[in-house]
Amino acid sequence: MLSLDFYNPTRIILGKGRIAELDRHIAADARVLVLYGGGSVERNGTLDEVRQAMGERHVQYFSGIEPNPAYETLMQAVELIRREQLDYLLAVGGGSVIDGTKFVAAAVNFAGDPWQILLNGGENVTEALPLASVLTLPATGSEMNNGAVVTRLADKAKLPMHSDLVFPQFSVLDPTKTFSLPARQVGNGVVDSFVHVIEQYLTVVGNNPLQDRFAEGLLQTLVEIGEQAVSETDNEELRANLMWVACLALNGLIGAGVPQDWSTHLLGHELTALYGLDHAQTLAVVLPAMLQVRRDAKRDKLLQYAARVWQLTSGSEEQRIDEAIRRTRAFFEAVGVPTRLADYGLDAACIEPVLQQLEAHGMTTLGEHGDITPEVCRQVLELAL
Amino acid sequence: MLSLDFYNPTRIILGKGRIAELDRHIAADARVLVLYGGGSVERNGTLDEVRQAMGERHVQYFSGIEPNPAYETLMQAVELIRREQLDYLLAVGGGSVIDGTKFVAAAVNFAGDPWQILLNGGENVTEALPLASVLTLPATGSEMNNGAVVTRLADKAKLPMHSDLVFPQFSVLDPTKTFSLPARQVGNGVVDSFVHVIEQYLTVVGNNPLQDRFAEGLLQTLVEIGEQAVSETDNEELRANLMWVACLALNGLIGAGVPQDWSTHLLGHELTALYGLDHAQTLAVVLPAMLQVRRDAKRDKLLQYAARVWQLTSGSEEQRIDEAIRRTRAFFEAVGVPTRLADYGLDAACIEPVLQQLEAHGMTTLGEHGDITPEVCRQVLELAL
Repeated sequence: MLSLDFYNPTRIILGKGRIAELDRHIAADARVLVLYGGGSVERNGTLDEVRQAMGERHVQYFSGIEPNPAYETLMQAVELIRREQLDYLLAVGGGSVIDGTKFVAAAVNFAGDPWQILLNGGENVTEALPLASVLTLPATGSEMNNGAVVTRLADKAKLPMHSDLVFPQFSVLDPTKTFSLPARQVGNGVVDSFVHVIEQYLTVVGNNPLQDRFAEGLLQTLVEIGEQAVSETDNEELRANLMWVACLALNGLIGAGVPQDWSTHLLGHELTALYGLDHAQTLAVVLPAMLQVRRDAKRDKLLQYAARVWQLTSGSEEQRIDEAIRRTRAFFEAVGVPTRLADYGLDAACIEPVLQQLEAHGMTTLGEHGDITPEVCRQVLELAL
Repeated sequence: MLSLDFYNPTRIILGKGRIAELDRHIAADARVLVLYGGGSVERNGTLDEVRQAMGERHVQYFSGIEPNPAYETLMQAVELIRREQLDYLLAVGGGSVIDGTKFVAAAVNFAGDPWQILLNGGENVTEALPLASVLTLPATGSEMNNGAVVTRLADKAKLPMHSDLVFPQFSVLDPTKTFSLPARQVGNGVVDSFVHVIEQYLTVVGNNPLQDRFAEGLLQTLVEIGEQAVSETDNEELRANLMWVACLALNGLIGAGVPQDWSTHLLGHELTALYGLDHAQTLAVVLPAMLQVRRDAKRDKLLQYAARVWQLTSGSEEQRIDEAIRRTRAFFEAVGVPTRLADYGLDAACIEPVLQQLEAHGMTTLGEHGDITPEVCRQVLELAL
């Protein structure tokens, strides 16, 4: 590592009962829009706590942000904000709600068609409304980063954006708000966090000793607490730790100054857009196959991963790599996320449309070496059947 | 871990030649005071680079901030800023210059006697001038935190302050600017960073798996690169990594939500104030003796430290703890920092005055359990002779 940039101004407020502190962090004269998804934050009392913490402020609500937040839905929030002259956004929910809120923040005062924000990856964002979040699902890391992914239903496109203007000002992480989550969502969160780290870590062996150690620390912690954090639905301490891990897995820290991959995510996005798999399900399917196909390009780092995360130091190189991939797959299965396309009712017929979508979205040179073509993706998907 | 707070808005800009980017990050109409220490930043060209990057802005200079920055000196800068109506501070140097600049930023508009800021640990700071830094010596972490330590010569008191208002807006870390440093200063920096991590890590075994892994990653990286980073005076990559490690060793991350010690630092401060040892020299002297004296209170974490940082997993508990302490001491010596009071010309006569100063400064209940009395400190210093 010869150079790096790091910037992350989001304040993290983690702990039971801390939603009550919202009042201290949002200006008293703010005109707030609270954005959320379905009824779960209504049913589990999170929204009531938020309402109470906001006191006498002007607050309006916008519900219906879906998993893989839809451009079409978010633009309705944009219209509401413009009409009602709201000036502060509070996302209450998981990564989809926070991602959607970031896009809304950037779109409200955008000059031109807001879809251009996503076509330009957010580089053309010059201002955004201030936003914050109350996180209910540890997974995406959106609560402490500047990124968002938005899907346009009309053309089944799932596109990312990044802008320093959409960092949440603060995020409240109350571990008890995760107690009512279905196991499937918590398991998804564990896989999502794990693969976020892998995308920033499992590339080439370089001179980035600290980023490597931190990435390995995140992976080791997920392996240590993952299963138990899923099964013990009311373990406050485990859920607090899981929230902290998910947060740091994608807040810019371990990725600063190092090569990154992201091919598993980009291939996975197409699977979600075409066939509706949960985001983490696509990662659990793609990653083990991707590592198998890329075992030579990633050989040295795979061996480091095998040794430091899975304590695999004996046997031939091939054996250690095989075993590391096997354990990765077994870990995903152990937290409840199946790792084969067949587990989701998909067969070889699903492959060709995915490759076409990759071409259509210009995703033809993926990975840390830029050499993962749609043809390589075909091999990966065939291995993942 | 059940709860934590984390907030760190400092932008890190690390890499060769990046001082030129100052212009982009400071407002064009800012009236800037550049604060620095002695002549080293003049001699090695850093100050010239800064001057050039600042273009046509109004810039004044204040030199003479000493190691262990003196209140008396800093108040001269405060007077200059008030007189010349300057409104932006740029620290160019190591931790002492940055610490001093933070105090100055808080003191300029402080209502009342600025010494009160230090007597209150910074809690009474309600506004501060914006500041940034150009770091030339990786050690204290001041470039990315909200803390400072200031010494008043008049009463040999060395006191800390903390305030979120004195985070640098950004810090430029150019690894080539460390090439001209004497080995003693680089070695001091390695020890300082190491002990910063230890103070936040080596306490009790709790349920903080990620903070532990990150702390261990920092320590392992220092052990891996420390000696070479000191001896290879123009190894840009090693120095870049050392700068990044020192930065993250004390930026609030590994200390979030966990018990902390800091007894080695507080005892060390008195040694510096009374006898003029470098800050890191005091840490190298005190820490091994402190761990020896506190081996029972810290037993479980010492064993974890022995296993994870030094790979000591065989032998009795006592043997592993002894060996971990021995290796810690050997590491400090290997980077050129002696670990005995005698190495600095001090004998048993130095102890009583230190204990008196601890009493005078109210430092009578140190450590993560608050049970390190001056009497315990006597044992530590006797072991450190």
